Amino acid sequence: MAETPLHEHTISELAGLLRAGTLRPVALTEHLLERIDRLDPRLHAFKVVTRERALAEARAAEAALSNGHDLGPLHGIPYAVKDLYNVKGEATTAGTRLLEDNIAQADCQVVRRLSQAGMVLLGKTHTVQFAFGGVGINHDQGTPHNPWHETPHAPGGSSSGSAVAVAAGMTPMALGSDTGGSVRIPAALCGVAGLKTTVGRISRAGVYPLSWTLDSVGPLARGVEDAALAYQAMHGVDLEDETTLGVAAHDVLPTLKQGVKNLRIAFCETLFFDDVDAEIAEAVRATGAVFERLGAQVGRMEVPEVAEAFAHKGRELIIAAEACLYNGRYLDEHFDELDPVVAYRMIGGRKLLATDYYALLRRWAELRRSVLHTLADVEALIVPTCQLPPRPLEVIDASIETYRDHNGMYLRNTAVGNLLNLCAVTVPCGFESQGLPIGLMIYAKPFCEDVALRVAYAYEQATQWHQRRPDLSWAG
Amino acid sequence: MAETPLHEHTISELAGLLRAGTLRPVALTEHLLERIDRLDPRLHAFKVVTRERALAEARAAEAALSNGHDLGPLHGIPYAVKDLYNVKGEATTAGTRLLEDNIAQADCQVVRRLSQAGMVLLGKTHTVQFAFGGVGINHDQGTPHNPWHETPHAPGGSSSGSAVAVAAGMTPMALGSDTGGSVRIPAALCGVAGLKTTVGRISRAGVYPLSWTLDSVGPLARGVEDAALAYQAMHGVDLEDETTLGVAAHDVLPTLKQGVKNLRIAFCETLFFDDVDAEIAEAVRATGAVFERLGAQVGRMEVPEVAEAFAHKGRELIIAAEACLYNGRYLDEHFDELDPVVAYRMIGGRKLLATDYYALLRRWAELRRSVLHTLADVEALIVPTCQLPPRPLEVIDASIETYRDHNGMYLRNTAVGNLLNLCAVTVPCGFESQGLPIGLMIYAKPFCEDVALRVAYAYEQATQWHQRRPDLSWAG
Repeated sequence: MAETPLHEHTISELAGLLRAGTLRPVALTEHLLERIDRLDPRLHAFKVVTRERALAEARAAEAALSNGHDLGPLHGIPYAVKDLYNVKGEATTAGTRLLEDNIAQADCQVVRRLSQAGMVLLGKTHTVQFAFGGVGINHDQGTPHNPWHETPHAPGGSSSGSAVAVAAGMTPMALGSDTGGSVRIPAALCGVAGLKTTVGRISRAGVYPLSWTLDSVGPLARGVEDAALAYQAMHGVDLEDETTLGVAAHDVLPTLKQGVKNLRIAFCETLFFDDVDAEIAEAVRATGAVFERLGAQVGRMEVPEVAEAFAHKGRELIIAAEACLYNGRYLDEHFDELDPVVAYRMIGGRKLLATDYYALLRRWAELRRSVLHTLADVEALIVPTCQLPPRPLEVIDASIETYRDHNGMYLRNTAVGNLLNLCAVTVPCGFESQGLPIGLMIYAKPFCEDVALRVAYAYEQATQWHQRRPDLSWAG
Repeated sequence: MAETPLHEHTISELAGLLRAGTLRPVALTEHLLERIDRLDPRLHAFKVVTRERALAEARAAEAALSNGHDLGPLHGIPYAVKDLYNVKGEATTAGTRLLEDNIAQADCQVVRRLSQAGMVLLGKTHTVQFAFGGVGINHDQGTPHNPWHETPHAPGGSSSGSAVAVAAGMTPMALGSDTGGSVRIPAALCGVAGLKTTVGRISRAGVYPLSWTLDSVGPLARGVEDAALAYQAMHGVDLEDETTLGVAAHDVLPTLKQGVKNLRIAFCETLFFDDVDAEIAEAVRATGAVFERLGAQVGRMEVPEVAEAFAHKGRELIIAAEACLYNGRYLDEHFDELDPVVAYRMIGGRKLLATDYYALLRRWAELRRSVLHTLADVEALIVPTCQLPPRPLEVIDASIETYRDHNGMYLRNTAVGNLLNLCAVTVPCGFESQGLPIGLMIYAKPFCEDVALRVAYAYEQATQWHQRRPDLSWAG
């Protein structure tokens, strides 16, 4: 471990070094700030680097730890947040220059919680405009560069900057948000771990909304344990987000390393493997043998609710209609200044009638009930996170149609989970022939983040795919 | 008590008689069925009398109790349900002949729970069509007759039949539903107790919906304790109604009779006393002295969220839009066969846009948060249940305009509580110069049904207004 570069350590490894005295918070923060300075001009992950705040928080952590005031495993650990999260004194632009004056008056709830856990905020990362897209392209503020290829390939979206920052070792953890796959897609395409939480688990208060019905907060990190540590510090009741009220508290850390012996894990044969890139399908199918070796009962099953959830073409319309509440002003007055790949899809929400909207939500409620019965005898579903690997941007962005088609494909397997309000973890499960990462998605039932994390951790530790890092010599 | 007619006993009194052996379930049921046969041709409270089921359930209760198998205080007690509640083998018509063929395949969740508590179902009571109106008029199936006046006066709606049935001693308890005041208005106008529960407390599964966002299930009864007993048997988690998930269980009975010493009770001066009938205002103001005598701290306060909730003219539109999902077919194909006072208001929901609907719901969520802060230092608000007493139907029903105006007035004070998701109890607090009942409404915070019931019970016991019964010599 002594030879592992500082920026490749996990949070728990860094926590150990900080407590052993072989590393200090300020030195760690300065190391990562230097790395950002060097790599980010090419990778374009960061919208803003909060250097002053980072150094102040690192100094505070250093003083506290050196005086024996230890806030736990996140104390002194740097992180970044997607540019939807309110950070006091910084603009929350949600991916558009039109919001450059939207300065946050206070930190959002989860940033407050991570600050209270002693974390050090490095900066804010780029997002797809209004978080409405799965490819990762932002024509207004620029598209983050997937670290796994020198030629621009899709980083995945909408939490594109967070995924690139983690994959390139510029931060051990970054927050994303997931409404249709926006944590999981970029995590998969950039070869890192991503956790999509159940709506109700983590407060969205102070996070620029896309859809209050579907938005979820979740971490991207180099490994599953790091995601679990961040999750543990963020979840819980917040009066400012009514969906968190009445949700029973839980603790994912005690079970994280218990393994998967006798857990019932199934390949979901409905939809998820249809029209999937052959190398991806092969890599995901190969995980079955790993889980069996670890003692899990691995099967296959159909989940009819998945097919119906996918058939609900109203999903994007629901999101668009809700998004119009927050962004209607820009659609009305600045349509031509918006990212065309976002604006034309969002404005469709304007026409949706309340009765049709309500009918869809009621139908979703039924599907969410029904899927619980279907999943009664299984702990987790395993499927490909995405149908296809990162594709060159020039192919995806050739026209509005090629964008739309790719966007639909990247989102398909993840968006179904939002509609059913499942939780999920994506972890790398191999690399395709060009060396680009492949994501395995582990779905668990609502509010069973402990199960998703536990299954993902067991797989990750057995395979160590997460240890492979991109060669960034071309980047700086 | 020996001289009290059987039909005037409370549930707990009846429970005592049943256990003392001086009364048997079958005799009690037969007594009430005879009373219904005699009075209901004039009062028109019952849509259908489930005579066979009632007698079968009464016989079962009699056999059980005589064998020492005692299911608790509701065992062998008759009740009725509004014609929105699914009762196996009976039509759920929701107040329209168009639904005469809508035969329920199973009992709804709350009927199942009351059956499990040993209750005896007497029948189903009339409702305003689709439960969409506060006056109580139903031009399609007939308007129940307010027992307090020989000339037809508004019974209040939409749970008109349930209120009339309880007020006339045809049943000790009947279920209503409350979306904008539909339990509380008829309870107040008919001089009985009514409980409006917090959405999330009691499952609405199997109840014909008006608005899933606002619908609530609640009992009407001769006294507060009876309402509490019914409530206690019905509330709790049901997987078929997702709003009940994660709501902490509670028990209202242990605190019901603890009195109000040192409780902080306030007249809400915002909106609720504006343009209120002088006799009603006087009667409600007089309750302050009663609560003070009982040891409560009585004050006055403004609640800005009440004013804003009332100003939200979108409330009826939200309900209408949601109701269009369930009733759109009748609006499209049978508009002229619907009750005109309902249909013309409901069809307006068709035009509402999803973004406007969503914007209103989000604003309501903010108001619901905000009102909790405003109410932090008070346990209950006391206000008039309705602005005006029961008015003659010929005055109200003179034109579509007079109906609309009266409907708005009857609903004003109650509908605000639905929007803010408060809970409430209404109890009689006097009678105006014509001898018509006046309702006192006690609002408590969300999920504080225990507080609303406790305050109402203390007032009722101190004043005994609920003991006054209508003279029904004119009815049969």
